[in-house]
Amino acid sequence: MLVINKSLKIHSDSKFQIIDLTNSLNNLVSTLKIANGTINIFSKHSTGSIVINEKESGLLKDFENILNEYIPGKNGYNHDSIDDNAASHLKAFLLGSSETIPIVDGKLDLGTWQSVFFIEFDGPRQNRILSLTIIGE
Amino acid sequence: MLVINKSLKIHSDSKFQIIDLTNSLNNLVSTLKIANGTINIFSKHSTGSIVINEKESGLLKDFENILNEYIPGKNGYNHDSIDDNAASHLKAFLLGSSETIPIVDGKLDLGTWQSVFFIEFDGPRQNRILSLTIIGE
Amino acid sequence: MLVINKSLKIHSDSKFQIIDLTNSLNNLVSTLKIANGTINIFSKHSTGSIVINEKESGLLKDFENILNEYIPGKNGYNHDSIDDNAASHLKAFLLGSSETIPIVDGKLDLGTWQSVFFIEFDGPRQNRILSLTIIGE
Repeated sequence: MLVINKSLKIHSDSKFQIIDLTNSLNNLVSTLKIANGTINIFSKHSTGSIVINEKESGLLKDFENILNEYIPGKNGYNHDSIDDNAASHLKAFLLGSSETIPIVDGKLDLGTWQSVFFIEFDGPRQNRILSLTIIGE
Repeated sequence: MLVINKSLKIHSDSKFQIIDLTNSLNNLVSTLKIANGTINIFSKHSTGSIVINEKESGLLKDFENILNEYIPGKNGYNHDSIDDNAASHLKAFLLGSSETIPIVDGKLDLGTWQSVFFIEFDGPRQNRILSLTIIGE
Repeated sequence: MLVINKSLKIHSDSKFQIIDLTNSLNNLVSTLKIANGTINIFSKHSTGSIVINEKESGLLKDFENILNEYIPGKNGYNHDSIDDNAASHLKAFLLGSSETIPIVDGKLDLGTWQSVFFIEFDGPRQNRILSLTIIGE
């Protein structure tokens, strides 16, 4: 039984961006030779989230659209007088900072139509860091 | 210290359905003789979610109503031209794919008014699979 | 490799309140001498949530405002005929019951601008209990 902490550095190219982490995570688990356990993916940023869903380009656009509909960029937010990115925080507040995913037979135990995403709400940024914790054997 | 992966097969009878998992999960933990640890319940589907709240019939209807109010079944979603279930994905996107719950003294450490639910957004389906990971001793 | 369950008792002073847990959690991890692993923070209540974001007073007010905008206190909810706190449940339903956070070098591996909060939606309450599970070494 092992616990292993790793960090994954990513960069984003635009204000809003959905970045697929699935291959990176499976490669990491494979390299570490963990057969069974869990991986926790934790965003160290309060303007980005970890979500799991289907990677279909129209659907990814639907995710962006619905967030912008209910959390418009400017809406008299108090935080905008401090840092001008309240809407980015509100989106991350709603979607959460982490997901914990099972590892079975050396791979993330995702369904056929699932991918793991980091969603950037306040890019572009050069140094986004995800903290990864694998617990297993 | 053990890590145990199990899967739980469930079926749904209607488009939207809230299915109580609490007894199944407690029975599993009891059978496995895990006294202390955590259980991660992970939906392998991107049109269903795991949530924890109170099992009161009026409240369960309130959950359904508020989701339908903000994510109507048809709304010009891009994904509907591919698979006609964008609203189901959007609901799962909002509510998330998993929960991790403590196990204390051989039972899920839920509060008095808490139950664990799988919410089906795109049923009926015969083969919904939840991936369960118990870590503990 | 250890698994340790603890509970944290908190009280709230008003209907809606955002309570910072960060120092309490870091103190606990320090006392337990866990260097690497994860901590799961689980709310045993279905009218309160665990969230992670930035502790800036204007932003905390923005969180409250957006929740009240989309989930008004009274809106013909079914559950209000039973217990008169449907809106509190709906907020917790949306934001979730737990978060799992990495522990690295004996501290919660939070980003510079992240704090861990319990959000009370149905206070004031004297006996809110969080179930904490630390897994690590």
